[in-house]
Amino acid sequence: MTGRLQPLDPHHDGSVRYTGAVGSAHPENLSLGDTVDLRVRVPHQADGSPGAAEVVVRAVRDGEPHVRRATRDSVDEAGAWWTVSLRLVNELTSYRFLVSRGADDYRWLNGTGVHGRDVTDAGDFRISTAHQAPPWVGDQVGYQIFPDRFARNGAPGLEAGALPAWAQPAEWDDPVVHKGPDVPYQLFGGTLDGITARLDHVEKLGATMVYLTPVFEARSNHRYDAVSFDRVDPLLGGDAALARLIDAAHARGLRIMGDLTTNHTGDHHDWFLAAQQDPAAPERAFYRFGEGLSDGALALGYAAWLDVPSLPKLDHSSAELARRLYAGPESTVARWLERGLDGWRIDVANMTGRLGADDLAHQVARQVRETMRSARPDSWLLAEHGHDATHDLMGPGWHGTMDYAGFTRPVWCWLNGGSPAGPGVRHGLDYLGLPVDIPVLPAEAAVATMRDSHGAVPWAAWLSSTMHLDSHDTPRFRTVTGGGTDGRIDQSGLGRGLHLVGLGLQMTMPGVPVVFMGDELGLTGVDGEHARTPYPWERRDTWDLATYDAYRDWIALRREHVALRHGGLRWLHAAGDSMTYLREHPDQTLLVHATRRETGPVSLPLLALGAAVSALEPLVGAPATVDAGVVTLPGDGPVVSVYAVDGR
Amino acid sequence: MTGRLQPLDPHHDGSVRYTGAVGSAHPENLSLGDTVDLRVRVPHQADGSPGAAEVVVRAVRDGEPHVRRATRDSVDEAGAWWTVSLRLVNELTSYRFLVSRGADDYRWLNGTGVHGRDVTDAGDFRISTAHQAPPWVGDQVGYQIFPDRFARNGAPGLEAGALPAWAQPAEWDDPVVHKGPDVPYQLFGGTLDGITARLDHVEKLGATMVYLTPVFEARSNHRYDAVSFDRVDPLLGGDAALARLIDAAHARGLRIMGDLTTNHTGDHHDWFLAAQQDPAAPERAFYRFGEGLSDGALALGYAAWLDVPSLPKLDHSSAELARRLYAGPESTVARWLERGLDGWRIDVANMTGRLGADDLAHQVARQVRETMRSARPDSWLLAEHGHDATHDLMGPGWHGTMDYAGFTRPVWCWLNGGSPAGPGVRHGLDYLGLPVDIPVLPAEAAVATMRDSHGAVPWAAWLSSTMHLDSHDTPRFRTVTGGGTDGRIDQSGLGRGLHLVGLGLQMTMPGVPVVFMGDELGLTGVDGEHARTPYPWERRDTWDLATYDAYRDWIALRREHVALRHGGLRWLHAAGDSMTYLREHPDQTLLVHATRRETGPVSLPLLALGAAVSALEPLVGAPATVDAGVVTLPGDGPVVSVYAVDGR
Repeated sequence: MTGRLQPLDPHHDGSVRYTGAVGSAHPENLSLGDTVDLRVRVPHQADGSPGAAEVVVRAVRDGEPHVRRATRDSVDEAGAWWTVSLRLVNELTSYRFLVSRGADDYRWLNGTGVHGRDVTDAGDFRISTAHQAPPWVGDQVGYQIFPDRFARNGAPGLEAGALPAWAQPAEWDDPVVHKGPDVPYQLFGGTLDGITARLDHVEKLGATMVYLTPVFEARSNHRYDAVSFDRVDPLLGGDAALARLIDAAHARGLRIMGDLTTNHTGDHHDWFLAAQQDPAAPERAFYRFGEGLSDGALALGYAAWLDVPSLPKLDHSSAELARRLYAGPESTVARWLERGLDGWRIDVANMTGRLGADDLAHQVARQVRETMRSARPDSWLLAEHGHDATHDLMGPGWHGTMDYAGFTRPVWCWLNGGSPAGPGVRHGLDYLGLPVDIPVLPAEAAVATMRDSHGAVPWAAWLSSTMHLDSHDTPRFRTVTGGGTDGRIDQSGLGRGLHLVGLGLQMTMPGVPVVFMGDELGLTGVDGEHARTPYPWERRDTWDLATYDAYRDWIALRREHVALRHGGLRWLHAAGDSMTYLREHPDQTLLVHATRRETGPVSLPLLALGAAVSALEPLVGAPATVDAGVVTLPGDGPVVSVYAVDGR
Repeated sequence: MTGRLQPLDPHHDGSVRYTGAVGSAHPENLSLGDTVDLRVRVPHQADGSPGAAEVVVRAVRDGEPHVRRATRDSVDEAGAWWTVSLRLVNELTSYRFLVSRGADDYRWLNGTGVHGRDVTDAGDFRISTAHQAPPWVGDQVGYQIFPDRFARNGAPGLEAGALPAWAQPAEWDDPVVHKGPDVPYQLFGGTLDGITARLDHVEKLGATMVYLTPVFEARSNHRYDAVSFDRVDPLLGGDAALARLIDAAHARGLRIMGDLTTNHTGDHHDWFLAAQQDPAAPERAFYRFGEGLSDGALALGYAAWLDVPSLPKLDHSSAELARRLYAGPESTVARWLERGLDGWRIDVANMTGRLGADDLAHQVARQVRETMRSARPDSWLLAEHGHDATHDLMGPGWHGTMDYAGFTRPVWCWLNGGSPAGPGVRHGLDYLGLPVDIPVLPAEAAVATMRDSHGAVPWAAWLSSTMHLDSHDTPRFRTVTGGGTDGRIDQSGLGRGLHLVGLGLQMTMPGVPVVFMGDELGLTGVDGEHARTPYPWERRDTWDLATYDAYRDWIALRREHVALRHGGLRWLHAAGDSMTYLREHPDQTLLVHATRRETGPVSLPLLALGAAVSALEPLVGAPATVDAGVVTLPGDGPVVSVYAVDGR
């Protein structure tokens, strides 16, 4: 239900500039009973006349909409500020604004934009008093490491003798097997001590947090098929190596996120073996055997993730499972936080607790959070969710999600470079689970998808979600942008331009940017498995340093400017080859202008930027001109430019 | 997130033509484990080429999207049918279709239309196996009666002696007091026997169901402040009179719906008196006294509906309250169904169970339904909900809602006639709770609001919801359309034209039309209280017979044509002064064309209507022409025309 996008539209969001907590509370972290001041910025119209004669907030309280008039509490040369205060009496408060210049002007402002008609509540702004994310989350820049492929810590290689039967040892420079039955078994032998030895690289890049895919003992290189949640895989160095990594990371001020599968275990997990061997075992209730199953599960005899036999699905109606896995101090969730993890990324969170007639997802998520709060009050709970996570992000469960839906997909559609074979030639990549080529869409389409996705979730949940250009589950972004399909570094640089535009967006939008190891070198890959490239430490000559330097610069820029981390997001322009937005914070306002190719300059009314703007200081990119009430942004591209707006 | 609207867009909905239940199940009433065939109609493009090369369904199962290709199982001169089957493994299944003509065509089809970009799940088609509405509901035409104002059964008047202290007796022709403290106490003395004596009128009009506002003993003329749920108000004739009414109605084949307040009671209710008198009384737990309350409630000392002292809010965390009011055979809900009511309209359902940190709404709704199913398996559970009911209509609770959001509001905005004082002069009516004049919007805006509202709820919930042009809680529609503000019948006929366009929409759209007593006479009223006019039986000379006859004709048309009651809804056109849609059923297809004033003729490609259409037979309105592949609809207005489409 995205509204139109016009630079002089009124604006509100959940950021500090627009949502003022009264008293001690912080707007990103509110409690039941708190009062917030909701502020709406209404730019003057082009002719200088007021953009609104009346602003009314409509908030749902105890299930019933209540309306209250806002007051215009300041007017400047560029527009007016309207304010209304709201007491948070429910865990989740949903609201939007009616903005009117008079009898013939009827507009709703909600999280998805401005609408000249009645809208449903789906796009309402939302505040959840149950969200309570740790304050450090919003400041992070993450670095995702797939342990088998990052670093061996100089180990000469894998002694075949020491290997489990399933493992097929590979040399570090061997091509990655990404098709066929051997995919999960090819073992490169990366270790946790290897990561510890390479933390310098992470720190130099500017990342502040490491997200580790699973480290529990398993029977595959990806380790999403745990055989136990009680021990770190000896192939990775065991529990002691994880402790060394955590200590070393913390000593550098780096956070460490673990990865837990609450949806399923491996079919060789201690619990599943016990459940299979003895129908009377307590673990029998951890899984779903027998009747009432989907066709696939009926063939197997038990429920499994997407009917994959090696991944039996957990049945969260079992209280004993809850106790062992995620409820209380003895649980897996609690114990590894006490050993130093700063939070959990929950694998397949979207399916956890959902099976047939049962939907226990919110109950499980709430309990996981409760356990984490007790074990480690400032720990972060991040959900894997490949599609629309809106209704799982309303507060009491996951803090945030891996934002494939609201960030990755629209960015891919806008920056899809096709095949290096030539313009218009598709690279034939699977589109994040859809059996079609990745479409090529104009900026207005990509931005509409972003606004639909983010408009409906609490601001705090958006800030606690992660932005990925790609991950271990997707093709490399460098391949999407046209950098090639061979799984090596894009030497041609053909994909670099669009790749760095994506990077510029990732580092200037709300949420936590997470870099997948190797993206900073220009690595390519046609699918998730192909993207799990052993890190080419010994081939520095092949690194695309222009890409590497850009990562360092953009990450530094984000860490330097609070508006990029905590500022509001206000769209000014989105059409075809360019998009423009403001990041607004009480301490600074930055303007971001992105183009995907050489295009015409974009002109915007100065009124949209606020009062007393005399110039835009370019932090990145070419100068913009300010003349006669019009800001003109340069048309070169592909590039992302960032400007400091010195107006009030 | 409403999509564009183009006549050759692909289409799907939950109706029998597009959703085929496999085996014995009926698509309006499906169960867990059922398999459905989902059909998509894809008209050819204007040049005759196929509208799609591929159709893929994306359905969420156990929280994870699954995609499956549909097969094109028939092609005709006008388009193709694509089909894919889906097994319902969850209580709620959410799905949409990816429709593509090839690499450069990427479109999603969901409940809100067609989108050339990625969308959230908010607009997905939905099937709920928990819905299970009684099959008779979809065939009803309702007539809403406010008992104090319908008929006295010839009683000479009210003997003051027999009246309770609160009552202020009025003569039948007295003006209605609709402002000030006396509003609830003016008593006209209508009775249930009065209604019984006038059932002829209801039957002649063509209505099949009577919806009675509350009849329990209370201390106001509206009776939403019950003093007991155990006895019918003696002023209305008591329990015996209700029994006589139910028997007489059933003898004529008319259904009767009761009205129950589950959100609150009156402050003189037996329970509330007991709770106040004795803090140890079991009833004490039925209400929320003391701390943790909103500002208004703190002043009162107890929670109340919108802080109105006379309406203390019920606390649904009490199991004893549940037992007495809505859980089990001894409950109010069960007992009155056993006495013959065919269902309940639940007052303020949107707030029931919602109070501060508690949200028990879905639990209460589910329990009410369970009780009704046991007491009377074919009873209907209808929720009052003044705004967006989407998330309360997903199946296990209310069957449907009073569709103010998806029908009344958009119809008012499109057919707002302003004041008879002249064009452009506003009548100054409050807009259904918003402190602004009712806007005047073009058809595309009204239809977008309808599609947003209906697109997100299960088809069965839409069919089980009610369409109101107005009610005892709103201004009269005849006043909205420009018929005047004096509370009498619009003799000038100034509001008639637009009123009858609204009627035509109400009688040709999905859902259950409900006529508020007196609308069929052309009565006016500026607010809900003003609209509660004593029925002018003795002033037949003032009835607007053109309006009355139109009601009889439109109701008869709806009852005659199954497509109007159970057909799908496919939008063909919506712009400015006109809107056009198909109601499609395996037995017939009807085309509805509505205009709000004289306007240009509307031309549509014949391809949109299906194969082998040679002519459109006008059932209502002027002829349409079919020529050279183009259907041209007449431009006269304001009018609603209906055509039988004889194509396949």
